[in-house]
Amino acid sequence: MLTGITYLDGLLGDGEIAGLLGTNADVGAMLRFEAALARAQATAGMVDEEAAAAIESACARFVPDMEALTSATARDGVVVPELVRQLRRAAGERHGGFIHLGATSQDVIDTAAALKLASVFDVFDSRLISVHSQFDVLESRFGGNRLLARTRMQVAVPITVGDRLRAWKSPLEHLAAELPHQRERVLILTLAGAAGTSEKFGDRIFAIRRAMARDLGLFVPDYAPHTDRGRIADFAGFLSRLTGAFGKIGQDLALMVQNGIDEAEISGGGGSSAMPHKQNPVRAEILVALARYNATLLAGVHHALVHEQERSGSAWTLEWLLMPKMIEAAGLSLIHGHALLAAIERLGDPD
Amino acid sequence: MLTGITYLDGLLGDGEIAGLLGTNADVGAMLRFEAALARAQATAGMVDEEAAAAIESACARFVPDMEALTSATARDGVVVPELVRQLRRAAGERHGGFIHLGATSQDVIDTAAALKLASVFDVFDSRLISVHSQFDVLESRFGGNRLLARTRMQVAVPITVGDRLRAWKSPLEHLAAELPHQRERVLILTLAGAAGTSEKFGDRIFAIRRAMARDLGLFVPDYAPHTDRGRIADFAGFLSRLTGAFGKIGQDLALMVQNGIDEAEISGGGGSSAMPHKQNPVRAEILVALARYNATLLAGVHHALVHEQERSGSAWTLEWLLMPKMIEAAGLSLIHGHALLAAIERLGDPD
Amino acid sequence: MLTGITYLDGLLGDGEIAGLLGTNADVGAMLRFEAALARAQATAGMVDEEAAAAIESACARFVPDMEALTSATARDGVVVPELVRQLRRAAGERHGGFIHLGATSQDVIDTAAALKLASVFDVFDSRLISVHSQFDVLESRFGGNRLLARTRMQVAVPITVGDRLRAWKSPLEHLAAELPHQRERVLILTLAGAAGTSEKFGDRIFAIRRAMARDLGLFVPDYAPHTDRGRIADFAGFLSRLTGAFGKIGQDLALMVQNGIDEAEISGGGGSSAMPHKQNPVRAEILVALARYNATLLAGVHHALVHEQERSGSAWTLEWLLMPKMIEAAGLSLIHGHALLAAIERLGDPD
Amino acid sequence: MLTGITYLDGLLGDGEIAGLLGTNADVGAMLRFEAALARAQATAGMVDEEAAAAIESACARFVPDMEALTSATARDGVVVPELVRQLRRAAGERHGGFIHLGATSQDVIDTAAALKLASVFDVFDSRLISVHSQFDVLESRFGGNRLLARTRMQVAVPITVGDRLRAWKSPLEHLAAELPHQRERVLILTLAGAAGTSEKFGDRIFAIRRAMARDLGLFVPDYAPHTDRGRIADFAGFLSRLTGAFGKIGQDLALMVQNGIDEAEISGGGGSSAMPHKQNPVRAEILVALARYNATLLAGVHHALVHEQERSGSAWTLEWLLMPKMIEAAGLSLIHGHALLAAIERLGDPD
Repeated sequence: MLTGITYLDGLLGDGEIAGLLGTNADVGAMLRFEAALARAQATAGMVDEEAAAAIESACARFVPDMEALTSATARDGVVVPELVRQLRRAAGERHGGFIHLGATSQDVIDTAAALKLASVFDVFDSRLISVHSQFDVLESRFGGNRLLARTRMQVAVPITVGDRLRAWKSPLEHLAAELPHQRERVLILTLAGAAGTSEKFGDRIFAIRRAMARDLGLFVPDYAPHTDRGRIADFAGFLSRLTGAFGKIGQDLALMVQNGIDEAEISGGGGSSAMPHKQNPVRAEILVALARYNATLLAGVHHALVHEQERSGSAWTLEWLLMPKMIEAAGLSLIHGHALLAAIERLGDPD
Repeated sequence: MLTGITYLDGLLGDGEIAGLLGTNADVGAMLRFEAALARAQATAGMVDEEAAAAIESACARFVPDMEALTSATARDGVVVPELVRQLRRAAGERHGGFIHLGATSQDVIDTAAALKLASVFDVFDSRLISVHSQFDVLESRFGGNRLLARTRMQVAVPITVGDRLRAWKSPLEHLAAELPHQRERVLILTLAGAAGTSEKFGDRIFAIRRAMARDLGLFVPDYAPHTDRGRIADFAGFLSRLTGAFGKIGQDLALMVQNGIDEAEISGGGGSSAMPHKQNPVRAEILVALARYNATLLAGVHHALVHEQERSGSAWTLEWLLMPKMIEAAGLSLIHGHALLAAIERLGDPD
Repeated sequence: MLTGITYLDGLLGDGEIAGLLGTNADVGAMLRFEAALARAQATAGMVDEEAAAAIESACARFVPDMEALTSATARDGVVVPELVRQLRRAAGERHGGFIHLGATSQDVIDTAAALKLASVFDVFDSRLISVHSQFDVLESRFGGNRLLARTRMQVAVPITVGDRLRAWKSPLEHLAAELPHQRERVLILTLAGAAGTSEKFGDRIFAIRRAMARDLGLFVPDYAPHTDRGRIADFAGFLSRLTGAFGKIGQDLALMVQNGIDEAEISGGGGSSAMPHKQNPVRAEILVALARYNATLLAGVHHALVHEQERSGSAWTLEWLLMPKMIEAAGLSLIHGHALLAAIERLGDPD
Repeated sequence: MLTGITYLDGLLGDGEIAGLLGTNADVGAMLRFEAALARAQATAGMVDEEAAAAIESACARFVPDMEALTSATARDGVVVPELVRQLRRAAGERHGGFIHLGATSQDVIDTAAALKLASVFDVFDSRLISVHSQFDVLESRFGGNRLLARTRMQVAVPITVGDRLRAWKSPLEHLAAELPHQRERVLILTLAGAAGTSEKFGDRIFAIRRAMARDLGLFVPDYAPHTDRGRIADFAGFLSRLTGAFGKIGQDLALMVQNGIDEAEISGGGGSSAMPHKQNPVRAEILVALARYNATLLAGVHHALVHEQERSGSAWTLEWLLMPKMIEAAGLSLIHGHALLAAIERLGDPD
């Protein structure tokens, strides 16, 4: 949730997305990585079958000692060393040593991020479809209504509501069409070892990557060094373009429902503690706030492109601080955007 | 906490600050506002004494219906209308009507923010003192050691460790010296009613403000319109200058402990899942990440200066999304900064 | 040039790109728009052939009254009304009225921006090719040299120089491969009239757009409302990913040439006024600065996505303030990046 | 000027401020530094009187070879080594060696920045006074007019125009009151030598600093290490709060003059190429754009707080790219803000 205040969770939190990015999802995704690695290494002959089965089974029933994870992460800067230690203990002395073989923390964490994002993309997909249906409804109800175009905040020439709806919808259509491309770039397997050179794998690395990717439902790029964060930065830009598209809609609706302008009516606007009669365009305002929030955070993700040497602790951590919030803000924009469109009771004027 | 991942809370969370800004602290602060308002209005003759006593007592024993608060906030954009409704019900029909008299949501929320920040300032104060003692220890242990100055990342002329310590410490001393000024600007009572004109108070507004401020331990500016967010933006700048000062220290220490440079030794660095022998300067890196995090978020707080008309829902909400995170990041910098300085085992070379 | 200081132009200016975006290029591009519009409208029967020929000829020999343009722009917020006025006068009373028929300022300015960017893309293309050849040279000279990988700024495992070169080159290859996609999205014709509805064109709009686009070498999207700035925001992200890729290289090289690390040698580093013997990795540092510069400015371009109604004067102007600087910074990164790679005299250690 | 397009200079350029920060002002300020240094060193016995007189005289008549400055700056990353070289040649062999004695590039450049800013502060001071008189005029003409407060973009309760004017004016009054504090922090002498330890000066450094500061009209802080950029970051925040205060006014006025709202009339708004009758609130929109511009750039200045070791080439250069633009944007806000207030013909409704 975007704030730490419980009662703001309905306004400024997207519970579904937050869940998909939360602790349980995260630990689960890391365990999927370790299990898939052992399995693929068994097929490739790096790990014996019995050990792989024991590791898979250990991953399946593993319950982490969260306290130990937390304090070790505070020391190590990453959760993986302690997670692997716990997992090895759970798998037993005989097989535990085969866990995480040749892998590094970044392999686990970046792949786990991709696994979590796969679910996020599904949610975005289905929410975008709902939003688009809402546009169809609005088009059929109000598309022919009259509206005065406004440029530089002044009345320009007559248009129809359909003209404005089309301008609202167009960026969202582009973003929906771009989703498969984003999936392909972001939902990738990362497996390259301590310095990105797969030095413990030899030639088996290619087969192991293909097997793991198939297993986990991820893509395998030809080459994606740990330090190339361009795809993350690009995805962050996508998220900000998404919140930006809704920010434009929110800003327009907030302007349209102004008393004295009355180009639109929205049901269920928020009340005020001092003036209970008011109909505040709360969701419209939140969409503007979320657009500015993501536009702001985006800069930080791009600063993290300066990712020194083979792995930057500071640049990578900066991503962790920013990306989940940007993703949730994008999810929240889809929720508020859909609800706002659904609450529209009039747009423009019928003839 | 800065992320939603439990096991990152020790690395990327400041539990103490998060607690001071969390739901309970927030509701508590809003109740203190309403109680103090009733009390001050009783003294000023706007509310009868019995009602004020009943309101104070209701505030003291009030347990909010969080579910109702959450869903009402999602609708209203602010928690106050529903909180006041619940509080009025708790106080009973006879006195409830005197709750929140003449006030508006922003009066409650901005004042509650100030009340919470008062405790945050106390924490910052005491942590800064600890950091400064740590500098004294370092100065006495290593101040005379030799070091080669480095400019543009190249060796320049010989200096002492004391020279560099002084450059690290100086910005923190300036920030510590600035704290009282920040307190005075930020820890203010806000009471101005629906449109900022105190229209329900008449001339009593000045006495009521003074009484409430005394009661709550806040300052009363001559005039601070709801829409003037300059003090918030300035405080955000202070927070970013604080994380920036530690970011410089972190960057320097990460450079000093590089293998091959070895200008410093730090104990207890983080391990790696692939290379357990490594001593990673984790806290140093986190300080750099936090500096860039706050530098990034600061821009958003300044965008919120464009706060239209008498109250902007979108600009105000943008502050809520950003300020608590910036404050916690600053608190976390103080924690990691202190711990990093305390973990230094050598700086420079003894003669 | 990125600063207003002449002597910084070689360090912080890309004269070639600045020229492609400057006043002459800009006026020239706007005149090309007006000429192509008249020509296409003549073919479509909206303007008679004689007028179109007169307009083309007027555009060809037009010399703007810059003083009048400047003062009118200060008043109107855009240059187009006064430019059209001057152009009409130049074309004469009889034909002048057919200039800019049905078009609006944004059609001219956004199309002119695309025309200027077409040349910028050509420059980027050719500079990226030079950079890539430089990588080939480095690979053949030093690819087999030994290097110690560094993660979290500490020595990890042995790699080769070729491993690091590959990680440097990979993001640039992705960006080069993305250029055609960016061209297609950004190099578009904009022609939609006062409110984006082409209301003065009727059904002829499609043929006119196709003819103009062919004439000007631009793409025609199915639909691209004036207010959809997603393609601009995406292109700004591309620019920041480009400067970010060079920022990573610059950061790495600045670390590699540290005295005491000596993993690389660069010729021709900058001197110092106090220590003439120093070899400062100036270009490496500038690459880091440019990466942070574009990362910073990118946020503003995304704030401009909140582009209200049919045209936002403030959001659009914000783009004008930011985009040319981001483009020049990207060009400058290519210059400094290439020169830095070319100045490398050693990377890593030969066996 | 904020763009490289001549005809935008009246809209998006502040010629006066740009001049105060430009090449001539800059070279002049650096020469003042070198002359004052020699003079103070003569008084302190570090330089003989004849040499100091020769240096002062050389500085007074010096004409730089700009081409050589430019190419040397591209190599050295700073202009000072070549400037000093040229200056030494101009002063002649006998005395030239005493120029820049014990100083470093950063001493010259940071002090020159302070000297240029002194003039900028004077301009800001006088423009703020003009803006405040304009408020007095508006208050006396329209202060008693009726207006409906608007919160969350919806009509709230009745207020007067005076109430809104007061909310506009208040942040500007705070900023005007803060100017002397900013002067004291920013207008400082920097003189500390290659590594910030004044190692070539010995105990004479204090007297020399005092003498130079007196001569140049600057302050001397007790201690201000080259690497403490907090005062710059704070000043950048001041600039952004200034543009933010005008951004709020601009946003409000753009909303007030909307057709259908008509709460205000402004003369001389901009025309449109498609709709010559329109009255666009151009200056109001530009004020919003400038607020967002400075809010955006501010982040970069705070990233430059991570200023490694004794001098960071990349962080320092980042300041050069951002600060002059932020200063000019602030100056431009004062120009457009004043002109916008002066163009107001009506605010609210008379009884």
